[in-house]
Amino acid sequence: MSFVKGAQDRKEECRAEMSIERDFRRELPSIVDGIVALHGKDDRFTHVGPEPMPARSSVIDIIHRAISVIYPGYFSPARLDEVSLPYYFGQQVTDLFQVLSDQIAFAIRHDCRRFDLACTGCETRGQKAAVEFLREVPGLQAKLAKDIAAAYEGDPAAKYHDEIIFSYPGLFTVTVYRIAHILHRLGVPLIPRIMSEYAHGQTGIDIHPNVEIGESFFIDHGTGVVIGETTIIGNRVRLYQGVTLGALSLRKEECEALRDRKRHPTIEDDVIIYANATILGGSTVIGARSIIGGNVWLTESVPPDTTVFLKKPELVFRENQT
Amino acid sequence: MSFVKGAQDRKEECRAEMSIERDFRRELPSIVDGIVALHGKDDRFTHVGPEPMPARSSVIDIIHRAISVIYPGYFSPARLDEVSLPYYFGQQVTDLFQVLSDQIAFAIRHDCRRFDLACTGCETRGQKAAVEFLREVPGLQAKLAKDIAAAYEGDPAAKYHDEIIFSYPGLFTVTVYRIAHILHRLGVPLIPRIMSEYAHGQTGIDIHPNVEIGESFFIDHGTGVVIGETTIIGNRVRLYQGVTLGALSLRKEECEALRDRKRHPTIEDDVIIYANATILGGSTVIGARSIIGGNVWLTESVPPDTTVFLKKPELVFRENQT
Amino acid sequence: MSFVKGAQDRKEECRAEMSIERDFRRELPSIVDGIVALHGKDDRFTHVGPEPMPARSSVIDIIHRAISVIYPGYFSPARLDEVSLPYYFGQQVTDLFQVLSDQIAFAIRHDCRRFDLACTGCETRGQKAAVEFLREVPGLQAKLAKDIAAAYEGDPAAKYHDEIIFSYPGLFTVTVYRIAHILHRLGVPLIPRIMSEYAHGQTGIDIHPNVEIGESFFIDHGTGVVIGETTIIGNRVRLYQGVTLGALSLRKEECEALRDRKRHPTIEDDVIIYANATILGGSTVIGARSIIGGNVWLTESVPPDTTVFLKKPELVFRENQT
Repeated sequence: MSFVKGAQDRKEECRAEMSIERDFRRELPSIVDGIVALHGKDDRFTHVGPEPMPARSSVIDIIHRAISVIYPGYFSPARLDEVSLPYYFGQQVTDLFQVLSDQIAFAIRHDCRRFDLACTGCETRGQKAAVEFLREVPGLQAKLAKDIAAAYEGDPAAKYHDEIIFSYPGLFTVTVYRIAHILHRLGVPLIPRIMSEYAHGQTGIDIHPNVEIGESFFIDHGTGVVIGETTIIGNRVRLYQGVTLGALSLRKEECEALRDRKRHPTIEDDVIIYANATILGGSTVIGARSIIGGNVWLTESVPPDTTVFLKKPELVFRENQT
Repeated sequence: MSFVKGAQDRKEECRAEMSIERDFRRELPSIVDGIVALHGKDDRFTHVGPEPMPARSSVIDIIHRAISVIYPGYFSPARLDEVSLPYYFGQQVTDLFQVLSDQIAFAIRHDCRRFDLACTGCETRGQKAAVEFLREVPGLQAKLAKDIAAAYEGDPAAKYHDEIIFSYPGLFTVTVYRIAHILHRLGVPLIPRIMSEYAHGQTGIDIHPNVEIGESFFIDHGTGVVIGETTIIGNRVRLYQGVTLGALSLRKEECEALRDRKRHPTIEDDVIIYANATILGGSTVIGARSIIGGNVWLTESVPPDTTVFLKKPELVFRENQT
Repeated sequence: MSFVKGAQDRKEECRAEMSIERDFRRELPSIVDGIVALHGKDDRFTHVGPEPMPARSSVIDIIHRAISVIYPGYFSPARLDEVSLPYYFGQQVTDLFQVLSDQIAFAIRHDCRRFDLACTGCETRGQKAAVEFLREVPGLQAKLAKDIAAAYEGDPAAKYHDEIIFSYPGLFTVTVYRIAHILHRLGVPLIPRIMSEYAHGQTGIDIHPNVEIGESFFIDHGTGVVIGETTIIGNRVRLYQGVTLGALSLRKEECEALRDRKRHPTIEDDVIIYANATILGGSTVIGARSIIGGNVWLTESVPPDTTVFLKKPELVFRENQT
């Protein structure tokens, strides 16, 4: 084919296209009318009304602001020293308060409307929850420092702690989980789940904000990890990629009955669970100091101090066929 | 070490570094010349020519614009009410038409060049496809509403429908898939695949735009799901994380022959497939209402109304060695 | 519920909320003081000091700038032709030199401080490493062209090479890995790992920058792939989603001893490893031309020209219970 066209050809083509363009654009109003006419019908989901709702982008902004406070100096371009530090924290914390209290208020109001409740004092409740969250920041920093130490101890590839803060997806997800979990415990609707699914999208690690996790928790590699809503995890637990802590299979008719019931396992202190192991069921307990091998599939409890592994699977070795 | 250096030391060091900096920068022209000289040689891939091509960033923009039309009020900062809604849809739809028709035209032109075909009326074809896509928006909204309802019914952790729209990676991926599938069916090259791989990157769920999926489809958690190019999925099917609907193993020499053949399974209505199950092969059919257990590996068909699970794997339990 | 409130009600509520808002904001200074007071205590991690450190956002910027040089015309909005190309490369390469040499200098300085070493000539070392990296760009382009050809040959769903460059997560991750690996080999600290974890977050594919990978490497789908720090991979190797090339289980006390030891397998030329297979251990060698089946779990070596697959797992088929 030739890339160079005669000027006349090109002009003709342009003219033809311009006239046709007008035709296609003329169809837009009827398309818009069709969308408007069907709006709100047929169980279409919509959120139209006078009240704003939490914005996903603002929730993501909150996560990154909180991380700037929790790990000062790591993610902000500003150079911090002992002189500037109090101003830095002062500015960051007041800014975070503002955006966090606004979004919590939107989320509470959204919740009130959904349940047809009067929403009195949503702003106030938003500010109260934001202040309560901020009060927990020092404790959160101390807890996350233990998670970082656990990552360093558990991964021979970790060269130093800063590398973990900068780059480990497990630590990022656990940081977001611990933030979301505090807000969830404070009764904030919607926002914790948006946070946990944001981290899930970033890292492939899915931790529901309702999960209870002890100190010094480490997830290595992490892609594909799923930790379901009612899981309880003790101290010094280590997980690898692809581990599922999930619910037993659900028939459609049972699903509604199980809402708010404990459906996911309990993992006691000092347990290690290797890659792609699956542990299911609300009454399944993995006893302290037990080790669960890769690919193990468990729906029953394991006593403390037990190593569980797959009986060596039978492999077939044969010469390549040609 | 001391962080404070004498002013003289610092100055000397700076001077030394500045002079060396000039040295290294002086090497840049020869490096650039080397890159230019080898450009287009040695099978290097390049896209240099007078014609623009679709931009990944614009394709991502199209996804988010389409989502703003499909789920009005959820992802836009604007407050919508019944008065502003027609203007909102009008503006969104005309903007979407513009960027979508441009990018489709670029993709078609890129395709024409690749096959050495004359590209007449690429703009027109872009506008035609964009209008045809927009005409399908109301039907798409109705279909996605059924997917949202299926997610709510299938996940006891779902507190309400808005949470699913805001945060569920499965719904996001299915939304992008349904958009990409329409464009793929309209014969638009390149763009549907950029869309599906964008969603894959965001969620870890890989659905090829050519797949056929019925109504009320739900993927829970989802990381690691792969649904290959020629898969067919019926109505009310539910999948969990790590499920592969894939092709049987391919020897390198067979790969070319299999292009455009059905290589991936068929899943009939009302099937549930639990986490990390693998189902392979173009003639494998999972019959209606069947349930495939976690970790099952299947290369053969399953009749309707059948539950398939792994024979309980033999686990070895022993006390921890010390 | 009524969405319309009396003007008086609304005013009262506003007044009440404003007064309470002031109360909550008044608590912020004591919260800030608490965070400042505990700063640096209790093993909290912080990075406060006069020296800047590498910024994650700048490292991501470097990746995208390098990709614009490696695949000219694919990711830049500018229209390139033979006339503009030398200017394009000139501008891109000098810009990349600047940001890359700055960030390497920050990383080296950060490293010096961590080990309490004097940091002399960090800027110079940054520029030297940046120039050495840029000198390798033509070779890198040729190597990646072979990876693209391998993807095209290995995936029947690939319609043409441009689609692979635009959208394949495997190629993106391998591109970032090859960039990070060069910097790692040049002794640049911290940055290669930030790069590889960025790609991991984008694609779910985790390749440590220290891994050695030969030519014509292809990862299909890819989510969940983990390739550990000391893995060695030959030429023309193909992997699918969920493959782990990992270390044998580590007891906590052994972890420290294993730092810097070969802990991950060796994969020889022309091997194919299907989805979700796990290969573990530093002395495990998969011989040339061998094929490892899906879900296989291996901790021992495999001779060349061998096909290994799971003995067909026993499945239980039964009619659905009602």
